[in-house]
Formats: sequence, C-alpha cells, structure tokens
Amino acid sequence: PGKKVLIVYAHQEPKSFNGSLLKIAVEELTKQGCRVTVSDLYAMQFEPRATRNDIVGPLHNSEEFNYGVETWEAYKRGGLSKDLVEEQKKVQEADLLIFQFPLFWFSMPAILKGWMDRVLVQGFAYDLSKSYDGGLLQDKLSLFSFTTGGTKEKYATRGDVRYLLWPMQHGIMHFCGVKVLEPHICYAPEYVSEEKRKEMLTAWTQRLKTLWKEEPINCTPEWYFK
Amino acid sequence: PGKKVLIVYAHQEPKSFNGSLLKIAVEELTKQGCRVTVSDLYAMQFEPRATRNDIVGPLHNSEEFNYGVETWEAYKRGGLSKDLVEEQKKVQEADLLIFQFPLFWFSMPAILKGWMDRVLVQGFAYDLSKSYDGGLLQDKLSLFSFTTGGTKEKYATRGDVRYLLWPMQHGIMHFCGVKVLEPHICYAPEYVSEEKRKEMLTAWTQRLKTLWKEEPINCTPEWYFK
Repeated sequence: PGKKVLIVYAHQEPKSFNGSLLKIAVEELTKQGCRVTVSDLYAMQFEPRATRNDIVGPLHNSEEFNYGVETWEAYKRGGLSKDLVEEQKKVQEADLLIFQFPLFWFSMPAILKGWMDRVLVQGFAYDLSKSYDGGLLQDKLSLFSFTTGGTKEKYATRGDVRYLLWPMQHGIMHFCGVKVLEPHICYAPEYVSEEKRKEMLTAWTQRLKTLWKEEPINCTPEWYFK
Repeated sequence: PGKKVLIVYAHQEPKSFNGSLLKIAVEELTKQGCRVTVSDLYAMQFEPRATRNDIVGPLHNSEEFNYGVETWEAYKRGGLSKDLVEEQKKVQEADLLIFQFPLFWFSMPAILKGWMDRVLVQGFAYDLSKSYDGGLLQDKLSLFSFTTGGTKEKYATRGDVRYLLWPMQHGIMHFCGVKVLEPHICYAPEYVSEEKRKEMLTAWTQRLKTLWKEEPINCTPEWYFK
C-alpha cells in the first residue's frame, strides 16, 4: 500500500489479451492501495526513433551527431524533449516498473524498445562507473510480463525461453541497477481455449496479490543459461 | 560478382564510425561487382511502430485489431503499406542482408527493430509450419555488423557477447530460414585511439574481400552458450 507502480504498455488493442492483463494489473494494484500510472505507448503515439529532436536547443557538437553524448549533455542541463522528461519523472517516482507487451521476434516491440533507448539516458539511468549493482535506478523493481505467439513446448525445443530474457532483464534493467522479478509469461493466448485464457488471467491476479513479498531473481548468467 | 546485397543501416550521422563501416561495405562490395542497396533507416525516417497504418484498405477484423493476423492477411491480398512492400522487395532480391548499427541496450536500435517487426511478416518471411530451416527466406545470408559502447573486456566480465546475439541471429534470421555469418563487432570505437579505429576499418575491408567464401555459423544453442 502506498507503493507507486509504472506500467509501460505496448499493445494497439484494448480488447486484446495484453489489454486484459493490463486492466487486471491496474485494478488489482489499485485495490491494494498502490498508485498506478500507465504509459500506453501506442495510444500516446510514443516516438521510438532516437533523433536530434530529443534535444531541445543547440547541440553539444553540431558537427557530428552522437546520440549518447547529446542526450547525456541535454539531461545534465535540463534540455531533453518534453516527452522524455515526463517518462523519466514517472520512472523516478516508481517503486515498480511493469512492462506489458506481446513478444515480437524474441524481444520487445520496437515502440517499447524505443522507450528504453530514449528514456534511460546516461546521467539518468546509469553513469560512467555507475552501472549494474551501482546503477542509478536502485531500489526499484521491474517485471517483464508478456504474451507469446508460440507455445511453451515450441520455445523449449530450441533452447530455454530464459535465453531471450538476457538482453532485456540483464542488459537493460540490471544495468540500470533495477532489480528483476520473475518474468510473467502467457504462452500462446491466441491458440488456447477460452477456459485456459481465463485461467491465465486468474493466475496473473493471484500473482499480483503477493507480488510485494517476492524476492528478485539473481540476475547472473547462471539464472539464464544454467 | 553479380550477387545482390541489402544493407540495412541504422545510424543518424554519416560521419560516425558506423557511417564509415557502411561506406566501406558499399565501396568494397561494389568493387567486387555486387549490386548493393542501402536502406538508410533514419534518413528514410523509417516508421518503427506496428500499427493499423501498415494495412491499406479495410481490416480483416475491425472489431479487434491483431497486428500479426492483419499483416498476414494484407500480405496475401497485396494490401501492405507501400514502405513495407518496398523493403520486402529489397529483401526478396538480396543474397545477403547486412545489418549495420550501434548496439543499443544489448540489442538493435528501435528503428531497426521496427524494420524487423514490420517487414518480416507472416506469409513473407515465415508461415505456419515454415520456420527455421524451413523458413521462407532460405538461400539468403545475413550478417550483423555493429559497434558497442563498452570494451570487449567489459562485455566479457558478465557473460559472453554471444548471449545477446541469440534473439537477433537465431530468433529472427534463423527463424526465417536465413543463414547467419559470424557477426562483425567493433568494440568501443569512441574510446580507442585513431590508429586503432583505422585498424578496425581495415579489418572490415579485409573481411569483406573473402566474405563469399565464409561458411555460416551453426545457429544452435551450442554456438551461443557452449
């Protein structure tokens, strides 16, 4: 109760299974007394491209555009574009970040990847020697909640689903110092029965009820690759 | 000679190190007699977001938008948006796909991820039972060429750089039936000496000279995780 949650949501259709998972999270967490904010990326028409438009005013080096350097400098002088400042404020305030999306090509949809690329800039999320357990977004939790097209069995035949979590959980969240809770994966909701879909929704509600008692995973290669 | 190459390039600045790597590839491959096409994503202002705009005309199911289903149906009836049709044509004609980009968060920049999400639709790149070695883009090669922010040593301290190649090489290219050549990684060009940078550019030219004699990697978990 009193905890702040940011849900970054990347699906075009409110009636989708991802839309239902979002709705459940908002309702259940609000019921617990959490303050829930949603960044509905498609509805916001969130810009995924990392360009010069992200910097307000003159560039640090206008001869040769370097996105990493320019956003770092812009962050320090308060010169990032308004949409990024707003997202950073939401992240700063949150105790828990939930990413809700359909898996696209073993990863996030581009619109969500663009949120990572543009919001988590140097100076804000990490710094020269401040990364991983020293990252700037410590004391926050994250949870990747996603649906897949393929069944669990299909993923298991060619390696472990955990393999694809490495860049997202370790490469992004852990790098910024954010702790990572077990992912929540709903396999192939489009292809299972209505009953099974309802079970999956109930399981998400149930998990959220005890979420704050969970321990983060140990985000090392062993967890991913055994 | 006579081979067709598509380079999908994702950097904002022609003067960047990625820009130099692109220029080298275009020059060297052209010199070999290849026909080289470049998709310069930032210059094209390529759209990374997967939305209803990708489908021309009425939707298959306008009650509930499902991007995968809609683009599949649109592909079959020739109803995908013009920018996607153009990219698919380039892919179809190519013998080799080179992806040139700076690594962003253990993965591709969002603009390039959007290219994957939107161009490689069902029906075109894969189909119900046509994936991996049966994928629809067989007889093509791919090569991920990228720069990193961190040094090679930094990547090695927390696992192998190959871990992050799994979603891109296996999850996307292998899934579509495209064979994968060894990645080409330039570590931390921003932080090394001018001499070292020149060496890296020369190494790329040298590699391209014998590229067509290379054998694809064996794209199984063993290659990535030993």
